[in-house]
Amino acid sequence: MYLENDMPVNYATPPADKLFPIAGVRLGTAAAGIRKANRRDLTVIELAPASRVAAVFTQNRFCAAPVLVCREHLAQGEIRALVINTGVANAGTGEEGLHAARATCAALAKLMDVRANQVLPFSTGVILEPLPVERIKAALPTALANRKSDGWHEAAHAIMTTDTVAKAASRRIDLGGISVTITGIAKGAGMIRPNMATMLAFLATDADVAQPLLDRLVKEAAESSFNAITVDGDTSTNDSFVLIATGQGQARFDRVTSADWQTFKSNVIEVAQELAQAIVRDGEGATKFVTVSIGGARTSAEAKAVAYAIAHSPLIKTALFASDPNLGRILAAIGYAGNLDPALRDLDASKVCVWLASGGEEVLVAHGGGRALTYREEDGARIMKRAEITIRVDLGRGDKTATVWTCDLSYDYVKINADYRS
Amino acid sequence: MYLENDMPVNYATPPADKLFPIAGVRLGTAAAGIRKANRRDLTVIELAPASRVAAVFTQNRFCAAPVLVCREHLAQGEIRALVINTGVANAGTGEEGLHAARATCAALAKLMDVRANQVLPFSTGVILEPLPVERIKAALPTALANRKSDGWHEAAHAIMTTDTVAKAASRRIDLGGISVTITGIAKGAGMIRPNMATMLAFLATDADVAQPLLDRLVKEAAESSFNAITVDGDTSTNDSFVLIATGQGQARFDRVTSADWQTFKSNVIEVAQELAQAIVRDGEGATKFVTVSIGGARTSAEAKAVAYAIAHSPLIKTALFASDPNLGRILAAIGYAGNLDPALRDLDASKVCVWLASGGEEVLVAHGGGRALTYREEDGARIMKRAEITIRVDLGRGDKTATVWTCDLSYDYVKINADYRS
Repeated sequence: MYLENDMPVNYATPPADKLFPIAGVRLGTAAAGIRKANRRDLTVIELAPASRVAAVFTQNRFCAAPVLVCREHLAQGEIRALVINTGVANAGTGEEGLHAARATCAALAKLMDVRANQVLPFSTGVILEPLPVERIKAALPTALANRKSDGWHEAAHAIMTTDTVAKAASRRIDLGGISVTITGIAKGAGMIRPNMATMLAFLATDADVAQPLLDRLVKEAAESSFNAITVDGDTSTNDSFVLIATGQGQARFDRVTSADWQTFKSNVIEVAQELAQAIVRDGEGATKFVTVSIGGARTSAEAKAVAYAIAHSPLIKTALFASDPNLGRILAAIGYAGNLDPALRDLDASKVCVWLASGGEEVLVAHGGGRALTYREEDGARIMKRAEITIRVDLGRGDKTATVWTCDLSYDYVKINADYRS
Repeated sequence: MYLENDMPVNYATPPADKLFPIAGVRLGTAAAGIRKANRRDLTVIELAPASRVAAVFTQNRFCAAPVLVCREHLAQGEIRALVINTGVANAGTGEEGLHAARATCAALAKLMDVRANQVLPFSTGVILEPLPVERIKAALPTALANRKSDGWHEAAHAIMTTDTVAKAASRRIDLGGISVTITGIAKGAGMIRPNMATMLAFLATDADVAQPLLDRLVKEAAESSFNAITVDGDTSTNDSFVLIATGQGQARFDRVTSADWQTFKSNVIEVAQELAQAIVRDGEGATKFVTVSIGGARTSAEAKAVAYAIAHSPLIKTALFASDPNLGRILAAIGYAGNLDPALRDLDASKVCVWLASGGEEVLVAHGGGRALTYREEDGARIMKRAEITIRVDLGRGDKTATVWTCDLSYDYVKINADYRS
């Protein structure tokens, strides 16, 4: 299939030596031949004893079997390993799918001499097809034998499905002489590629984080990263975001009131955002990376509703692709955001301001219910031509905000998604 | 601009002699040169005294000036004329736009010797541009002079913007020897063409309908016709649906309990549905006409949420374009409809059944949380190739239903909407 644009927007995988190992985490991969031969499609992430794990999963009611098993195992105790396969999503597979996910966990647990419920399973790939458990079982020893603490780069590649680029992020911070490391990988190219469902993200730190803090942090980080991106509005059946704290480093966090905790938290969120944005930058057919930033809302929920109305509008997304500063479409989307949050049904259009921005330049395009008197089409057109664009809106009715990242809608999106499942 | 498909899906404008005149309604058009020369862009619909009018309008908070003026005039008393222009939407135009809409009403009122608030104004076209009131005023006498009771066909053409085909429907029914006529026209090609906002629909009957009944009927008809279609999920700033009862025929309706009222009501709804479906059939780049029919819901709202989740999914729409029976995408959309109606967050996926149907043939594709055992891919593929497709879903948790009509998402949709405003 020929695509006009098969490159992510301003994104490249960090080199292997920029992905810092996390003490207590080892990663190994193998080619299990799940869907294609000679391709690494199986990843094992081993965690040191006493690691803490928190996760958020898809809200989709047709959630995949591994998601159900993850929820169950997380409730039961100490997690010692994650096993991730690509090729088959093990979704829409009923009882048989649950059995396959459990069998995978049991096989890995046996090799590692832990309990089956200490393993979390993840799958991504074609929906409605059975998981080839035997092939996975056969490849587990190889993945396990390959495990190493600097395996993040390799694992970032092994969890890819139709991503055009592997996604990883890492940073080491200094908290008054105490070093903390955070490293993560993610996959997903759009919310769903053709039948290649799933956004998966795995983020680990060597800090020791109390379980209640970790549980709260994973939700907060997801909210402002993976839950703030959209390519096409479709929510997959397998989406999972896992946050691991091995406690093998020097940092200890057991309450939220310290300045160090705030610094640590910000860094975790930033790594999650970097990965989330990489997914949008590698969005299906994306040629633009777009930040939709809403302010002046009464509630965060209504800010998010306006952000999504804009980010999901096919009319705005095609205008972004065409570099057309089509203001009417942006105003119209703000105006119908009441469909998403009824609280917006009393929005006063005359109080709304809209700006287009890029590279430090910001242009007021609309206020007082229509086009700004100072607005010149050439200013809007200049900004819309850039690869990184911010649509900023002030609703003029409060102080709550929301930010959503998205991409444009190009011919290639249709091409990719209309292409018969290959 | 070259489009691969610029024909509606199985729709042609009825011939002029199949559009029955409505006693008490005369329609005239003129070429006012609003945006293009030598093109009929102005329509006047004259109503006999004592006609009753009810209407529903866009919920968009950036609604156009004519919508505000319509609401105001409808509250004030007897309507004697409608004036509709294409080319400029008079939306996002602030105080000046309101003044322009009022000036248009005043000019027509003067020519007809009625009050300005007896005229309803409608505009469709480019957003954020001023309405050229003087050109409209200059052409009003011509439109008025041209008015005739068999002017429906001509008016259907004069209200078009980028529609590829004029949309009209008409029927005459017999209620125990009493004849009732219903005729309507509509415009819109997708919820919005590039900057060519607006769905407009005007439906008239010669029946005498009490105002409370008419008010209720226009809402009910809108709910199951114009509010049940979607091309891209974008709601325009100008959408209007007007129902007129001239009372010049023999039929009288002043309460809802008669069988005749039910027959009449069904026919009004059917005419509205015919027009609404014509809009989808002429949807931007549409190659398929798709009926999404949901049953087994606890409430109509949740049935509609599932229907819209399916109808708005770009992944399902591209699969329809590609004739790909991609069941995973349909299940995933049902699964995330809880984003639209939180009541669906406890949906039991194992109770959901999904069928694909076309031309009297229906295939069970999914149940029990996954693919149906009896389902064969070739059956799904055969149905997906057809131009008219029904996706039927039973949620297995109640007896409420909803139906939504939509079209596929093709290259031409992107082409049309990415094309710079011409």
